Amino acid sequence: MRETELIGKIDKAVGRRFYGSRKISLGIGDDAALLRPRAGQELVLTCDWFLEGTHFLRDKHPPDSVGWKCLARALSDIAAMGGVPRCFLLSMALPASHTGRWLDGFLGGLRRASRRFGCALAGGDTTQGKQILINITVVGETQAGQAVLRSGARPGDIIYVSGHLGEAELGLQILRRSRRPASPKDPLLRKHLYPEPRLPLGQWLAKKALASAMMDLSDGLSSDLRRLCAASGVGALLESEGIPGIRSSDIGRKLGLDPLDLALHGGDDYELLFTVPPRKSRSLPSAFQGVKLTAIGRITRKEKLVVCDGNARERPLVAGGWDPFR
Amino acid sequence: MRETELIGKIDKAVGRRFYGSRKISLGIGDDAALLRPRAGQELVLTCDWFLEGTHFLRDKHPPDSVGWKCLARALSDIAAMGGVPRCFLLSMALPASHTGRWLDGFLGGLRRASRRFGCALAGGDTTQGKQILINITVVGETQAGQAVLRSGARPGDIIYVSGHLGEAELGLQILRRSRRPASPKDPLLRKHLYPEPRLPLGQWLAKKALASAMMDLSDGLSSDLRRLCAASGVGALLESEGIPGIRSSDIGRKLGLDPLDLALHGGDDYELLFTVPPRKSRSLPSAFQGVKLTAIGRITRKEKLVVCDGNARERPLVAGGWDPFR
Repeated sequence: MRETELIGKIDKAVGRRFYGSRKISLGIGDDAALLRPRAGQELVLTCDWFLEGTHFLRDKHPPDSVGWKCLARALSDIAAMGGVPRCFLLSMALPASHTGRWLDGFLGGLRRASRRFGCALAGGDTTQGKQILINITVVGETQAGQAVLRSGARPGDIIYVSGHLGEAELGLQILRRSRRPASPKDPLLRKHLYPEPRLPLGQWLAKKALASAMMDLSDGLSSDLRRLCAASGVGALLESEGIPGIRSSDIGRKLGLDPLDLALHGGDDYELLFTVPPRKSRSLPSAFQGVKLTAIGRITRKEKLVVCDGNARERPLVAGGWDPFR
Repeated sequence: MRETELIGKIDKAVGRRFYGSRKISLGIGDDAALLRPRAGQELVLTCDWFLEGTHFLRDKHPPDSVGWKCLARALSDIAAMGGVPRCFLLSMALPASHTGRWLDGFLGGLRRASRRFGCALAGGDTTQGKQILINITVVGETQAGQAVLRSGARPGDIIYVSGHLGEAELGLQILRRSRRPASPKDPLLRKHLYPEPRLPLGQWLAKKALASAMMDLSDGLSSDLRRLCAASGVGALLESEGIPGIRSSDIGRKLGLDPLDLALHGGDDYELLFTVPPRKSRSLPSAFQGVKLTAIGRITRKEKLVVCDGNARERPLVAGGWDPFR
């Protein structure tokens, strides 16, 4: 297969004709893509690696999940700013052996995510490589000045998370212990294989100006909360009993995994972590479009991260999440 | 080195403070970058791989050249649309062993290119890897409707190229034959190590509506012209004697390299290939800001690519440029 055939295959499977010209003025096939920004909008730009061996395993992760997840996790960064996705660029390096069935599976998952989240493929770059390398750039937009940054948390703000934390990490641990490739239908692997970026929630929090600071949970709460606090120049006190953990704690325990550890340090959740000023927190519902919203602590003046247990015992929160350079 | 330290190092060396807030509303350090598009502008989006082993050699290419070239070649796609660069995202995977001196050299070259071409670093993604992997996304803009596509060439249009073709390939061949790492100052390697995207030329051709079609020469004239012709539904007749080749043909011949072959099939030139309707071609100067502009043939109705030599003998032009999947 030549590069032009490969590009043709990608264009056919995920290309812009699924969206018409509403989003993109010029898609795949030229030197660059063209996009007309809407008046009064600010662009939200992010890119994300998704690499064989680091972010997924060629023989264990279904290609459909690789396609879904590489886009979903990049979109999670758009959600974390309160942005609306517009289009994405796909950079892929592939072994020649993977331009057939594997690529078809990958493109199927990518197409579903692209349609589901309203984010059209605008362009990219392809090359050959021994390893499967993926890089996704997403372009989104927000009303100018409405994006929610990491730096806006103030002492006294209530700390919230969406969903249940640690379920993606539990899925990864189950997958690691298994000798077979993952089944795309295993409900315990669902959160790990097919994460859902919290786009409607992020957009709602931004539009209603409810969140003072926001980011997505990709590396684990203990590492990500540290980043939010550092950007805001504040500290945090978490109530460990309030943290919404995995819903299959019996399976976790069977594998010797502590639900609190999974919730604090597990990566890949793609839930939103956000802070809300106390007077606004009263109007926050307990769920948004079926996604649970839970207060897990509050922002403190002292630049320290502390976890408090049910007996009011405090201990420092150590960053135990994912760091590729550790 | 942890990921936050690495990001701090990149931000310090190339970050947005070199540009103030004029170009970017929010740079490195949050979930995504923010950029305010200018009124009446269309966005130009492109991304480009730059991979160890495929696009450069860790032990032969100076890190400073790797930094310069990864951005310069992505900017060449912006030039080919007639766009003005605004900002770029840098995705990097690095071995832990390369976060010291190698990274400093790389960031030095990247900073020079970033300043030289007025393209600010807005964000990116970093991870660890055994190989050095680089992906660059550039966001540029053009006056809406003014971008020059590949698809506008019409029978009778004159085909032009900027600069001299084949010099980057000659540099690569010299480098391949050498046992030592390349010297950044070797004039014969200059075009290979430090290509110059033709941004002012591309912008001028777009603004004056002189070019009917345009693209950059990255894989070699014989492969790239084929793409332009396919997009336009036309053919081409080249005059081999008119093609501006390498300026050190004695060295090429010493290495057994034919200047015409280098010009037709050599990659990495990052010159512009464009077509001009005959009535407009009369007003085209022979050089633009010191860059030579040369008519090398014309667009034909028949969808075939033909080269004609000094004795009016015609032969088909076979695509002999770079294809990563060949």
